[in-house]
Amino acid sequence: MEKKYNLAIVGYGGMGGYHANHILKDQPRIAITGIYDINPERMEAAITDGYQVYDSLDAICSDETIDIVLIATPNDVHKEIAIRALNAKKHVVCEKPVTIYSKDFEEMIAVAEENNQVLMVHQNRRWDQDFLTTKKMFDEKMVGDVFQIESRVHGANGIPGDWRHLKEHGGGMVLDWGVHLLDQLLFMVDSKLTSVYANLSYILGDEVDDGFQTYLTFENGINALVEVGTTNFITLPRWYIKGTEGTAIINDWSINGKIVKQNSDVLAAAPKPIQAGQGLTKTMAPPSEEATSTLALPSVEKSMEDFYENLVSVIEKKAEAIVKNEEVLRILKLMEVIFKAAENNEVIKLSL
Amino acid sequence: MEKKYNLAIVGYGGMGGYHANHILKDQPRIAITGIYDINPERMEAAITDGYQVYDSLDAICSDETIDIVLIATPNDVHKEIAIRALNAKKHVVCEKPVTIYSKDFEEMIAVAEENNQVLMVHQNRRWDQDFLTTKKMFDEKMVGDVFQIESRVHGANGIPGDWRHLKEHGGGMVLDWGVHLLDQLLFMVDSKLTSVYANLSYILGDEVDDGFQTYLTFENGINALVEVGTTNFITLPRWYIKGTEGTAIINDWSINGKIVKQNSDVLAAAPKPIQAGQGLTKTMAPPSEEATSTLALPSVEKSMEDFYENLVSVIEKKAEAIVKNEEVLRILKLMEVIFKAAENNEVIKLSL
Repeated sequence: MEKKYNLAIVGYGGMGGYHANHILKDQPRIAITGIYDINPERMEAAITDGYQVYDSLDAICSDETIDIVLIATPNDVHKEIAIRALNAKKHVVCEKPVTIYSKDFEEMIAVAEENNQVLMVHQNRRWDQDFLTTKKMFDEKMVGDVFQIESRVHGANGIPGDWRHLKEHGGGMVLDWGVHLLDQLLFMVDSKLTSVYANLSYILGDEVDDGFQTYLTFENGINALVEVGTTNFITLPRWYIKGTEGTAIINDWSINGKIVKQNSDVLAAAPKPIQAGQGLTKTMAPPSEEATSTLALPSVEKSMEDFYENLVSVIEKKAEAIVKNEEVLRILKLMEVIFKAAENNEVIKLSL
Repeated sequence: MEKKYNLAIVGYGGMGGYHANHILKDQPRIAITGIYDINPERMEAAITDGYQVYDSLDAICSDETIDIVLIATPNDVHKEIAIRALNAKKHVVCEKPVTIYSKDFEEMIAVAEENNQVLMVHQNRRWDQDFLTTKKMFDEKMVGDVFQIESRVHGANGIPGDWRHLKEHGGGMVLDWGVHLLDQLLFMVDSKLTSVYANLSYILGDEVDDGFQTYLTFENGINALVEVGTTNFITLPRWYIKGTEGTAIINDWSINGKIVKQNSDVLAAAPKPIQAGQGLTKTMAPPSEEATSTLALPSVEKSMEDFYENLVSVIEKKAEAIVKNEEVLRILKLMEVIFKAAENNEVIKLSL
C-alpha cells in the first residue's frame, strides 16, 4: 500500500477550512492529523468540524508523525512558521502570497534546501478552468500569435475579512488576487518582463490597495493588462485576448465566451460604414459577415497533476514541482515592482 | 429674413461628402456654393452629386460671395489651406485633427485673430449620444463621484482609406479616433491632467499606429483609460464608469447599457462566497440582491446648439464657441505627449 502522508494545518480561517474540508477531502495520499489556530474560536470550530487540535506550533513541530505542515495564516507570519516547520523536518505547503517581500521567501527557500524538505506555495489558480482555457488558446495559437492579454477580476464587495485590510499583515488586492493573476500570466507567457506600470486604488479608504491596474510588456512583444477591482458593480470580462488572427473572450468563471477569427480567404471583404454617434465610421463598423467566424471556446482536458498529487510526487522525487519556487519568487519581485511603479507613478524598465 | 452663409468645401472624400450630403443637408443658415478637390475623380463625384465645383483653392479664396470654407482634406494640408482662406477673409471650419502639431494650430489661431475670422474645428463627437449620456451621468453624479473612466472604440477592419496609413499625412489612430475620445474626456472632466502613459500598437505593419491605450491621471483624482483598437474582433464596452456609489456601462453606439448602484440602506448586506475556479471567493462574488439596484441609462435632451448652428451664432457674436480653440490646442498637446510617452515607454508628468 502506498504511504499516506500526515498533514497538520496551521491557521483555520477561510483558506485553512477550504483546504481541510474541500481540497484535501478526497486526497488519497494525505491525511489531516490536526489543526492549530491562535484564535480559540477557530480551535473550537476545528473541533466542531471533527478535527483534532494541537495546542501550539511547537506541538506540531515535535510530533514526529507529521510529514507536512500547511500554513494558512495571515501573510506576515508565513515565514516564521514555515522556517520552524522546515527546521523540524516537515515539508511545507504555504498559502499565497507566500511572503510580502521576496527576500523573506529567499530565506525560506534556503532553509528548505538546508533541511532537504519540500516547500511548495499553493498557487492554486493555475488549475482554474478559465485560465487553462486561456492557456490552451494561447499555446495552440487559436487566435494566431497572441499579442495582447487582459486579465481582470471585478467584485463589488470591497476587501473581505479582517487582516486583509491591514498593511502589516500583507493585506490589499495586489497581494491577495494580484498574486494569482500575475502568476497565471507569467506561467503562460514564456518571456521576460521588460516594463511595468501600475496604479493602485484606495477608494474604500483602507490603508491597503482595494484594487489595481498594471500594464506589463514582455520581451517577446506581448502586452498585458492585469486588473483587480473590488468596487466594480458591473464586471468586465475575465479574459480578453487579442491575436494576429482573431480575438477571444472569457466572460466569467462559468467559461462563457467565444472566439472570433478572421477568415483567411476573405481578407479583403470590405466592411460597410455604420452611423456611430455624429459620424460615419468604416473603421469601427463590424466586419462583414463573410469576413469572420465565431467559434466556441475549447474544452480543456486534465493535463497536469492536482496540487496535492504533485506535492506527493515531488516529495517522492517522481516529478518536478508544477509551482516552482523560482516562479513564485519572480511574482514576489514583480509585486514589489508594481508597488514601486504605482507609488512613483512611473514605468519601471527591467529584465525579470 | 436671416442671412444665409455661403460655404465652399475643400476636399470631397469621405468626410467632405458627409458634411455636404448629411450634416449640412438641412442646415437653414448655410448654403453650399461649391466644392474643390485636387483629385479629378472626386471633382467628377461632386458634379454627379449635383454640386458646382471650383477649379482651384484660389478660385474659392477670390470668390467674394463665399463666407465660410470647410476643410476636409488629409490632415497635413489643413494649415496651409486654412491660412489662405483666413487671409482671404473667410471663416474656416476644419476637420479634425486640425493639425498634427500644436504649434501649427497656434499659427492658424493667430491668423484667424489677425483677420478677425472665426476658426472652428469640427470635433463633432462632442454631440455623440453615447458621450452625452456619459457626461450627464458624470455631471449629475448618477454613480456618485466618478473616479475611473474607461472609453474605448474597437474595430476589426484595420485602418481605412489611403492617406490614413501614412505618417506624413497625419495618419494613425491616435490622430484619427484618439482626437475624439480625448476631446470628449477633457470636455467632461474639469481638471488638469497630471500624468500620461501610453502604448501604441503596430500590429498591421503600417508606419502609423493602428491603435493605442493611454492612461491618464487628473489633478482631481480621476483616472482614465482611453483605447482605440482596429484589430479587435470582439468589442469591449464603449464606456465603463466607476463612481463612489456604483458603476455604469454603455456597450455600444445604440446606447445599450445600465447603471448598477449600491443601495445605501443595505451597505452591510453580506455577499455569499462563490466557487470561482479552484477557490472560493467572497471578494469577487456578486453583491447580494438587496445590496444593489439596476437602473436604466438616462435619456439625454438636446442641451446645446448643433455644430453649424453654433458656428453661425459665433460668427454673429451671439454665442461662445462650443468647440473652443484653446480646448482643441490642449488635445493636440496631449497627443504630442501620448506619442512621446509611448515612444519612450514612460509616464510623463505634466500640468496640462
